[in-house]
Amino acid sequence: MSLPRVRLESSIPEGDSAWILDPEESHHLVTVRRCREGDLFEGLLPGRKLLMRLELAPGFSKGIVLRETPEERKGKVWLLAGLLKGEAFDRLLAQTVEVGVSVIVPLTCSRSVASITPERIPPRMKRWERIVMEATKQCGRAHSPEIREPLPVSSVPSLGLPSHRFVAATGSAPLVLASKVQDEVAVAVGPEGDWTAEELEILGKEGFQRVSLGPNVMRSPTAAVVAVAVFSMMMTGLSDD
Amino acid sequence: MSLPRVRLESSIPEGDSAWILDPEESHHLVTVRRCREGDLFEGLLPGRKLLMRLELAPGFSKGIVLRETPEERKGKVWLLAGLLKGEAFDRLLAQTVEVGVSVIVPLTCSRSVASITPERIPPRMKRWERIVMEATKQCGRAHSPEIREPLPVSSVPSLGLPSHRFVAATGSAPLVLASKVQDEVAVAVGPEGDWTAEELEILGKEGFQRVSLGPNVMRSPTAAVVAVAVFSMMMTGLSDD
Repeated sequence: MSLPRVRLESSIPEGDSAWILDPEESHHLVTVRRCREGDLFEGLLPGRKLLMRLELAPGFSKGIVLRETPEERKGKVWLLAGLLKGEAFDRLLAQTVEVGVSVIVPLTCSRSVASITPERIPPRMKRWERIVMEATKQCGRAHSPEIREPLPVSSVPSLGLPSHRFVAATGSAPLVLASKVQDEVAVAVGPEGDWTAEELEILGKEGFQRVSLGPNVMRSPTAAVVAVAVFSMMMTGLSDD
Repeated sequence: MSLPRVRLESSIPEGDSAWILDPEESHHLVTVRRCREGDLFEGLLPGRKLLMRLELAPGFSKGIVLRETPEERKGKVWLLAGLLKGEAFDRLLAQTVEVGVSVIVPLTCSRSVASITPERIPPRMKRWERIVMEATKQCGRAHSPEIREPLPVSSVPSLGLPSHRFVAATGSAPLVLASKVQDEVAVAVGPEGDWTAEELEILGKEGFQRVSLGPNVMRSPTAAVVAVAVFSMMMTGLSDD
């Protein structure tokens, strides 16, 4: 899926961040592509790409206006993700970037099949940063999420996490959907081998509420994507503002 | 993530579908593993594996009861997915099975990079059925979702879809979260190259409402997982029953 693109050179600028589209482009968007008020676009200018939203000018007199829109969500989702083997963790990173993660903290869990020695952390961080950067570009986000160095679960208390904290655990009480919840949230998803009782106890003491993402057993990358997507949606992503 | 497993041989059966756990197992579950009322388990008997839920017997007098629970959701999510190249579509299948899809209809879209000739449909169906079956087992679902033969978008009207229909389209009005919506829903996710205007028009005429899954541009497999997961959650998965 990709956003429709509109070249702005032939449109009339209105202030710094809005353009009144020429009639031909307007016709194409509304009649051919069936775009509607509020739809998003990429506006193209020489050397610039803007995220824009379609507005109808009052009385339609001036025509269709595309206005630049800040694309970043207001909310912030921290993901604490049990370390997985190479490709699975790479996919987890790319997919959670697409669904709006803000900070990723890899956790070296007792049951992580993957492990990482201290001297391998710098090259691994480079690789992860590259993957996060590429996914950021591809999905059209303006700013890259932050990826932290891997930590054991025992270091979670030192992270300075937001006060709303959840841990995905199959078989727990189901997550209750709501729009417009808190502005910042942390969600933890375990490794392939799941959390140990000790790890769950540490997270519990830190105020992480156990939630289930559904009745089925999800693989870790799927659970991470679903958790981040749902919490993102519960913040600002899916409200009408 | 995996469900805790409990061997039931040493527990006392109560009727056909409940077991009162022996004190040692009870202690382990509640004190060591910190399980709570309503948590899910796999109950193991020779040659059988049951999905069970933890209950506290009235007054705790008899001890902890594990009761067999039907694991399938009451709701049903149909996924209409634009055909993708081999590995991406395989991953879409496995991940959407994990998050609870009920029927998958591959769509041969104008902008699908992948195409499929009629004689290659039978071996492809075999491959897809195997992937769906494996994912079903791994995620602990009792019944495999159904996978249909690929169809062009023009055949969507003949599918007999549920009346609540959505199409994921970047830049549309955002999906509004709600718990407990309709019992059956169809959601369509386009191929890598997105829908054409003609395809969106066919879907629009069939009553598909355009929704956005978030402000970022998601790859098709990610969009499919998020769409199915969120609609599943909005049905029965995330309500307290």
